[in-house]
Amino acid sequence: MHVPLLQSLSPSSISVIHHQTAHHNLSVYHLRLHHVQRSSSFLTSRGRLSPTRIAHYEDTSSTHLAADRMIENVRFAGDFNLGFLDFVEDHPKIDWVGNCNELNAAYAADGYARVKEGTLGVITTTFGVGELSAINGIAGAFSEHVPVLHIVGVPSTIQQKVKPMLHHTLGDGRYDAYYKAAQQFTISQASLTSKATAAAEIDRVITECVVTARPVYLMLPTDMAYEKISAKRLQTPLHFEPPANDAEVEGFVLDSIVKLVEEAEEDVIILIDACAIRHGVKREVEELYRRTGFPVYSAPMGKTAVNEAYERYGGIYVGSISNPAVKEKVESAKLILSIGALKSDFNTGNFTYHIPTQRTVELHSDITHVQYARYPGLGMKRLLPKLTARLQPFHEGARLLDVPKFKLVVPKEDNEIISQTWLWPRVGQFFRSKDVVVTETGTSTFGVLDIPMPCGSVFVSQILWGSIGWTVGSTLGAAFAARDLGMGRTILFIGDGSLQLTVQELSVMMRWGLSPIIFVLNNSGYTIERYLHGRTRKYNDITNWKWTQLLDTFSSVGAKSKSYTVRTKSELSALLDDPEFAKAEHIQLVELIMDKEDAPRALKVQTELSGLTNKYTA
Amino acid sequence: MHVPLLQSLSPSSISVIHHQTAHHNLSVYHLRLHHVQRSSSFLTSRGRLSPTRIAHYEDTSSTHLAADRMIENVRFAGDFNLGFLDFVEDHPKIDWVGNCNELNAAYAADGYARVKEGTLGVITTTFGVGELSAINGIAGAFSEHVPVLHIVGVPSTIQQKVKPMLHHTLGDGRYDAYYKAAQQFTISQASLTSKATAAAEIDRVITECVVTARPVYLMLPTDMAYEKISAKRLQTPLHFEPPANDAEVEGFVLDSIVKLVEEAEEDVIILIDACAIRHGVKREVEELYRRTGFPVYSAPMGKTAVNEAYERYGGIYVGSISNPAVKEKVESAKLILSIGALKSDFNTGNFTYHIPTQRTVELHSDITHVQYARYPGLGMKRLLPKLTARLQPFHEGARLLDVPKFKLVVPKEDNEIISQTWLWPRVGQFFRSKDVVVTETGTSTFGVLDIPMPCGSVFVSQILWGSIGWTVGSTLGAAFAARDLGMGRTILFIGDGSLQLTVQELSVMMRWGLSPIIFVLNNSGYTIERYLHGRTRKYNDITNWKWTQLLDTFSSVGAKSKSYTVRTKSELSALLDDPEFAKAEHIQLVELIMDKEDAPRALKVQTELSGLTNKYTA
Repeated sequence: MHVPLLQSLSPSSISVIHHQTAHHNLSVYHLRLHHVQRSSSFLTSRGRLSPTRIAHYEDTSSTHLAADRMIENVRFAGDFNLGFLDFVEDHPKIDWVGNCNELNAAYAADGYARVKEGTLGVITTTFGVGELSAINGIAGAFSEHVPVLHIVGVPSTIQQKVKPMLHHTLGDGRYDAYYKAAQQFTISQASLTSKATAAAEIDRVITECVVTARPVYLMLPTDMAYEKISAKRLQTPLHFEPPANDAEVEGFVLDSIVKLVEEAEEDVIILIDACAIRHGVKREVEELYRRTGFPVYSAPMGKTAVNEAYERYGGIYVGSISNPAVKEKVESAKLILSIGALKSDFNTGNFTYHIPTQRTVELHSDITHVQYARYPGLGMKRLLPKLTARLQPFHEGARLLDVPKFKLVVPKEDNEIISQTWLWPRVGQFFRSKDVVVTETGTSTFGVLDIPMPCGSVFVSQILWGSIGWTVGSTLGAAFAARDLGMGRTILFIGDGSLQLTVQELSVMMRWGLSPIIFVLNNSGYTIERYLHGRTRKYNDITNWKWTQLLDTFSSVGAKSKSYTVRTKSELSALLDDPEFAKAEHIQLVELIMDKEDAPRALKVQTELSGLTNKYTA
Repeated sequence: MHVPLLQSLSPSSISVIHHQTAHHNLSVYHLRLHHVQRSSSFLTSRGRLSPTRIAHYEDTSSTHLAADRMIENVRFAGDFNLGFLDFVEDHPKIDWVGNCNELNAAYAADGYARVKEGTLGVITTTFGVGELSAINGIAGAFSEHVPVLHIVGVPSTIQQKVKPMLHHTLGDGRYDAYYKAAQQFTISQASLTSKATAAAEIDRVITECVVTARPVYLMLPTDMAYEKISAKRLQTPLHFEPPANDAEVEGFVLDSIVKLVEEAEEDVIILIDACAIRHGVKREVEELYRRTGFPVYSAPMGKTAVNEAYERYGGIYVGSISNPAVKEKVESAKLILSIGALKSDFNTGNFTYHIPTQRTVELHSDITHVQYARYPGLGMKRLLPKLTARLQPFHEGARLLDVPKFKLVVPKEDNEIISQTWLWPRVGQFFRSKDVVVTETGTSTFGVLDIPMPCGSVFVSQILWGSIGWTVGSTLGAAFAARDLGMGRTILFIGDGSLQLTVQELSVMMRWGLSPIIFVLNNSGYTIERYLHGRTRKYNDITNWKWTQLLDTFSSVGAKSKSYTVRTKSELSALLDDPEFAKAEHIQLVELIMDKEDAPRALKVQTELSGLTNKYTA
């Protein structure tokens, strides 16, 4: 099935610039640019803007633009793609965004794609130095199923043959080393070395990026950025639907699942995880749980895939770390319909699911498991609507199942210390519909798990990949996406240790007038690590920066920002209740002074589990 | 030939911890630690410090330490090596250094190894997220021949077989993906999965690291960090000498070179480049030029390999970009003895050497070229002393060759603007013997090329790899090395654009009481890029931070630092002449307000050359 891009990927606008002219320029995939220059270079293949080239560009641009579509979060780095950058800056539909470094930009592209579901994140970097600086961010997108297009400006096609000892090379003529590294962390790659195949290659990698929800890698040689190619392929919209399921297998599997539900006497729960979001089946899943009435729970990575205010939603299931009521309900169910699971250590309470395979049906983007049976190629996107239709008749029985409410309770504590136990429900009261809440791996992600979030709000975290510092770039991307989608505030929770990795990106938020609220948990170092190992070790200490000076230091004269240090419960409550603060009209940073050894409940339980299986103690 | 480590690698202390006990622990290669925590994680293979393990360690440590030797700049990151970290923190000869992020740490290890010649830089990171964040720094060390040992804490040997979906994995069971990427950027790799082979593997990669002056990659599984193995191999010191030359070939080549020198009627010059420093032949080269009296020049990457105050040193040769007097002398010589060349674009004035191969002898670490002939395996370390002996008789003729002096001249300008033309010679006057001068790729590196540096001072730059932001981490490592070696001040020149990439590492300098002087060239963005492409483009602009607030913001209360903004020539001269400033007793940052479109001479010439070969203008 071929569908126009804009319709196929809802609700966001996306993806490929369609040119209606007879030819189009290869520099076509972009909208918002995350940019950092790598001013390192003297390159034989480029130089100053020439009149010839400008003319070349103007030939086509005026007619290009009307039909342009967008890929967001493109970001440039340096000399091997400066030429391409001109097209971008001149493009009326592209916002140029300059990042401070490539890793932060990759994080931003990832965060953007997560919030603007169905959209690609796009990052552009330069050969070698730029792309390798970003590679951890790309690998994270691979790990967590986030579609990111990485465009790398590379030396010209001639240089790739001759292999001179250019800057940014390894000095030994291996021009393919970065490509080989990228192959490990992207689902598909293309090098645009031929006019004849370039368009098809671009279409191929973009399609694979969206369909698989994984990063892809596109090499754009300096000379190719200026080539003109036929626009014929652009008459055919790209096809982003997953492949059709085999009808016979699908029918067999549907029968099997219905039979299991019958045998379970309708004592069935639905468990939602990350891939339900990433592979775009949130609406199909909602149909399933609303029409059947089966109780629904979420894994940590699936948090907010389900509207957490829904009356038959029970909260977060994370194995032995779960709230005991949730644990009991999930583990005692006769059948679990698991959707989009990513059963990583942290997402499962250290592999403590007590759910026998015999009682489980797992739906994935490209495979279905029914008990022990595997059905490769049977994807959930097409299976889910049919499953909903078949299970709907069970809804009367399903409604009888009791679902204890996932409640927000702020505990009473008779002191003024901002404890982890008190903090998370208290900020939970501050959250509003449509807020985007980004939490750093560490105490923040653990803390928010126990807090129900309002309808329409979005939880963003990186639980499988777990690269600390990720949230700063990710918040930048998320805030752009939230602005584009007309969502609410973007709120970041991050520890003092994590913020040090990627702090400069605060500057870019201010440059673009974004207005996130950034809570910095100042607990004197790496608290999560203290729980894991080396409670009093020096290696868990950090320098105590002057946190409330950061925004001012990283901004131009006159930029608007506000910073606060908050030491007590009363102070924090007063701030959260201040309507001026809550409006979030400009960027705000709140330093929360907390105890060095305090940690959320879930984190404490997790570390106890880790201790039991600790290989170090042998 | 086997020599004890301390003697084989002069002048630094280095490298392998030798245990005199019957067994030793695998956690053995370290001294100074660059550390960042990645607090992301819940790991089944580790937990809290257990009494068992402490005892285990103490069994051996007391006797280990007496014989310990050192590898510096080790740096840890996070959870898959927290156990190993305990050994390090408890080690009396190890300074623990916490970096803000992994890329900065890799840069620091690189900078450390460059200044402390003959020493390994060591960085330790965690699996996936940590090692990939560092990979651009490792690749740069590969490109520029810097010996860096990268120790990666990885999941336990059992987990590597079972391949659970741990945090920091790609979620698809590919536990070898990071290793495959690392293979592209390291000369040798080892995974310590067996007690039987671990010691030999450690010895092998360290030897290859030092002998080839390239990074190596060592995987340390969590469980293996606590294993005890036989210390027998430690009775045999490692052998870091390059392999012997074939005597017959060597004799033939020496005869050939002598014949060429005779035919050139002693009109011979010596051209020194990067690998003369990296492959440890500075002293051999000095013997050669002093005993023969041949005029000596340096390529940019070889700057300060030769004492720049030496009377027969003529300055920097960089093809068409050279000072015309240098260009004429070098290119008219009848024979050029080139030592340790790395002929990259930027190091050769965009490949504009006008030296015919027929008039060239090239000595490298592992090959010799005589005119068109190649002699693989014939290395310069052993060849040079013999060559010096054979060429010494020519010294009377050689002395007659005139060498125009490489002079420091501060131009008179009738305005107060801090111009590039004026700045570099003026700071040249500020340099002292034993200073370490680090310059960022960009206007700074170009600017310093034309300035002779005092005897014993060291120039540090990254001209082939050219990763901007590198100098901040590198300065941290260089400052540690300078302190260890009893050298002078560490002075960094960096642009406003570059500093934004890696700025947080200033914090680590202060934490350790290092006292570099940091000149920030505030010229409103990426000036080098403006010259290359997009002179007035927005993508070459950056946010103008409040530079003089950085040090205060990134330090704990009470840390000593000073920052200055300097707008005129008089102000800068006064500051440079202030003895308090020049003493550099604590960290100082000097913001230099400069013109957006000003650039050093060499940069302007380079950009003109680039324009001629610009592939973009097609």
